[in-house]
Amino acid sequence: MVATRLQRLQKYMAGNGLAAVAVNAGPSLTYLTGLHFHLMERPVVMVFTLDQEPIIILPELEVAKLDHLAFPAKVYAYRESPGLWSKTFGDALAELNLTHGKVGVEPGRLRLLEYNYLRAAGGDMDFTDGSGVFTALRSIKDAQEIALLRRAVEIAETALEATLPMVRIGVSETEIAGELFLQLIRHGSDTSLPFSPIVSSGPNGANPHAQPSARQLAAGDLLVIDWGASFSGYVSDLTRTFAVGEIDAEAAAIHEVVQQANGAGRAAGKPDVSCAAVDQAARQVIEDAGYGRYFTHRTGHGIGMECHEDPYIRGDNEQVLEAKMTYTVEPGIYLPGRNGVRIEDDVLVTADGAESLSTMSRKIRVVG
Amino acid sequence: MVATRLQRLQKYMAGNGLAAVAVNAGPSLTYLTGLHFHLMERPVVMVFTLDQEPIIILPELEVAKLDHLAFPAKVYAYRESPGLWSKTFGDALAELNLTHGKVGVEPGRLRLLEYNYLRAAGGDMDFTDGSGVFTALRSIKDAQEIALLRRAVEIAETALEATLPMVRIGVSETEIAGELFLQLIRHGSDTSLPFSPIVSSGPNGANPHAQPSARQLAAGDLLVIDWGASFSGYVSDLTRTFAVGEIDAEAAAIHEVVQQANGAGRAAGKPDVSCAAVDQAARQVIEDAGYGRYFTHRTGHGIGMECHEDPYIRGDNEQVLEAKMTYTVEPGIYLPGRNGVRIEDDVLVTADGAESLSTMSRKIRVVG
Repeated sequence: MVATRLQRLQKYMAGNGLAAVAVNAGPSLTYLTGLHFHLMERPVVMVFTLDQEPIIILPELEVAKLDHLAFPAKVYAYRESPGLWSKTFGDALAELNLTHGKVGVEPGRLRLLEYNYLRAAGGDMDFTDGSGVFTALRSIKDAQEIALLRRAVEIAETALEATLPMVRIGVSETEIAGELFLQLIRHGSDTSLPFSPIVSSGPNGANPHAQPSARQLAAGDLLVIDWGASFSGYVSDLTRTFAVGEIDAEAAAIHEVVQQANGAGRAAGKPDVSCAAVDQAARQVIEDAGYGRYFTHRTGHGIGMECHEDPYIRGDNEQVLEAKMTYTVEPGIYLPGRNGVRIEDDVLVTADGAESLSTMSRKIRVVG
Repeated sequence: MVATRLQRLQKYMAGNGLAAVAVNAGPSLTYLTGLHFHLMERPVVMVFTLDQEPIIILPELEVAKLDHLAFPAKVYAYRESPGLWSKTFGDALAELNLTHGKVGVEPGRLRLLEYNYLRAAGGDMDFTDGSGVFTALRSIKDAQEIALLRRAVEIAETALEATLPMVRIGVSETEIAGELFLQLIRHGSDTSLPFSPIVSSGPNGANPHAQPSARQLAAGDLLVIDWGASFSGYVSDLTRTFAVGEIDAEAAAIHEVVQQANGAGRAAGKPDVSCAAVDQAARQVIEDAGYGRYFTHRTGHGIGMECHEDPYIRGDNEQVLEAKMTYTVEPGIYLPGRNGVRIEDDVLVTADGAESLSTMSRKIRVVG
């Protein structure tokens, strides 16, 4: 698996005119090596070229992890002193003998810390935005990744089902979030969740990024639950909106509109369709119903090792979908001071459409 | 509280010749504003000067958080398109009308993403390492921070006590880690732990960074548990080493040496003593006992909002301690293929010494 990934990396590097890529601790490094390094005060950087053994710079304390590396690499380990970092980066890059050309990096991941050491050691090398290479690599999921994503979705769905029996009038948002957290762990999620669950009721639901509060569920509320699980480093991100007892006609109406928008967004996805077209398919339903200005965010985002990654389902993104990409479809309507609705699924682009990995009913469901 | 922090920031900025500091999402921004922003694909940056209202660049979706900001700031919010970031950074920095001088940034936090936009918008400003300002600010804890750290330590200690009854021969490391995780949450830890607990038994204990494995506890093992809690954004980080049934003489001896080293390290801390001297105090005990080459890491690290922060208790760090600094003392002995011991406390520098915030007994304790 890792060998295939390295071959694909080198293909994309060549296609982008890159002599090398430098990757610091984070999901792209894990993707390429199968190893987990935390982003911490001590730098960890691996440099891949087109034709040489990769080099890795890391703390001596972490060297044992390399026993599990599936390909050879030249190791530059430093002992417990930042004063050694400069020389270690220098020796490592000298080994590669790269005297000119472009080195691709990830600006959304690389810190100034690693960048400054790389640049000082890199001579006349031109450090440039190589995000496109990593996006191309990681946005097309392989069979193993898709299996892990399915499992992350399944864990999230079963955990929410196990939580719903305690969701009733008088229970607070934070109590629900706490129970959901424990159910996620109990059902097999990694303990580091992709994000803390959002549980927002009544007027709090009008803030798409609400934090759970002490507010207790009341009859007539809409209840938004946005949650996800993590499984072997792959994550899910789902949202369902519930009715607490009997809701009024407007609340029922906006739920219906968002449900249709979610369906339209899911139906629009297939190879060669742009992200903008998927965004527009969902958005049009909400605009046609007269709620366009209350759908204040993009329709979705790619999902995989990161909860937010390429491809972003935005109106200004003309990137086209390809088979085996995975992303969320999560339209919403937010009525300030009143309530909110969001319905979110994780979908996989197939040969001729998009399959929703999440299968929990999207219909309004009464709790409480 | 926040007003005092801003005044201290400006004092340190002036002392370091900085006209401004630029802070991205992370603990320093939370420290200065009381607000929590995740490090995500959308940049969030705040720029503080010596005499103007600070400016903040953030996604429109996050603007509601600023309702809780305790001081005025000029807000530059961008809608859902990365194409707008460049202009937003440009407008925001133009507002400050900084035409030259130094802007301090945190290389260990700032990504190339934000740095590139700042630099493009910053004209002739010189972006420089301002870590010293943030270290000076955040390493001296105020009364509220110390109270939160005490609580994070207390949660960790009570959670481990609640876990110990299930620790016995035949139970696996991962089972213990899972139970400890749940007990941490049950006893009041924030759900995002500072790190996943390390539970390493027998020969696994010889790797200071071991991940919990399926290995089952066996009679005669040493068992290292390194764990921490998080409370309102402040963390604890503790280690205790246990005896599983009856241990051999060497295991008992190295535990005794590490316990003495821990005591010597704790006793060495007081104002005006260097970090190197604290490291040496702990290290000398282990060297004198003939195990020096098996103590492979620094003696400790600062602890607060981050699990690893300044001051680092390393032999090459001549920085002197000051009252109200907090750090770990965590000497260890690691015998490859056999076993390991580490004993770690979180301490607070007082007017004339160092108080251990953690109080659980350090003596060898038999489990199983």
